Amino acid sequence: MKFKITILRLGHRLGRDKRISTHLGLVARAFGANEIIYVGDVEKDVLEKINDVTKRWGGSFSISIEKSYKDVISKWKEKRGLIIHLTMYGINISRKIIKEIKEQGKKHILIIVGAKKVPREIYEIADYNIAIGNQPHSEISALAIFLDRFFNGKELNRAYKNAKIKIIPQARGKKVIKIS
Amino acid sequence: MKFKITILRLGHRLGRDKRISTHLGLVARAFGANEIIYVGDVEKDVLEKINDVTKRWGGSFSISIEKSYKDVISKWKEKRGLIIHLTMYGINISRKIIKEIKEQGKKHILIIVGAKKVPREIYEIADYNIAIGNQPHSEISALAIFLDRFFNGKELNRAYKNAKIKIIPQARGKKVIKIS
Repeated sequence: MKFKITILRLGHRLGRDKRISTHLGLVARAFGANEIIYVGDVEKDVLEKINDVTKRWGGSFSISIEKSYKDVISKWKEKRGLIIHLTMYGINISRKIIKEIKEQGKKHILIIVGAKKVPREIYEIADYNIAIGNQPHSEISALAIFLDRFFNGKELNRAYKNAKIKIIPQARGKKVIKIS
Repeated sequence: MKFKITILRLGHRLGRDKRISTHLGLVARAFGANEIIYVGDVEKDVLEKINDVTKRWGGSFSISIEKSYKDVISKWKEKRGLIIHLTMYGINISRKIIKEIKEQGKKHILIIVGAKKVPREIYEIADYNIAIGNQPHSEISALAIFLDRFFNGKELNRAYKNAKIKIIPQARGKKVIKIS
């Protein structure tokens, strides 16, 4: 099954979370998600930065901002998508749980990642509350590890359509080529 | 071999990188590194936040600030440690390369992660320039994926000595216990 993965970023705080939310969007794109949805007030720069990366580095990646996470979730329930909440309080990620998620037969997967405080109801609404270890770290690393395990590392070798630039991996130094 | 892993964070920019550098330190700790070294001017908050996490969540994790990365690297060369630079321009991470790194027989591994611009000489000094995919994302996700692959996922199940609090993983909700 070809999964369609959307990231829902909750609790962005103006100013404070600008760079974290930008990195989160870039991780979503680079690790094989199709879309990120931010909720609330988000700086224009965040969207511009990510859209600029997509424009130059290729692929299709969507960004949107919604007023309420409740709307996003109820739409998700309507289209019978799966909801995964990444939280340090959840059950630990494992091969077994990834297998189980894939076997649900649900094409649309919503991955919720919060900033500091996530509303209680998210823990109830989610089909899975999954921890990337039970130690504090970062929503950026949590999302990266989840997607890396989900796609079995293959997301890193994806080709990006319509790229204008591309890196040629080097043992030393940098090599970037332009694709016209 | 029991590896001792130190992260060297280059190019921290005051204000702008405060939260990114904090997350980077937390990722280093949660994914099995022993130490992080920041270079240059770094906000006190960054260190306090990470030390506070170590105090409450346990384990031993060291943080220090050095004036010059050159000193850190020359000390590393003296003690014959291995130097790995994580960069999107490098050769891609693979099982083969992780195996090769482990087989060098070097206990002390320095992992360099930069912010925007990394000096050219780092690419020369490093024993390995390794890319976590050749797309732009985040130094936080790059470090997490590298350590996750290096420790084969086992870092997430480590026990932390002298922890004051601990999470009991839950399918729904939060459960944190105090350890006296």
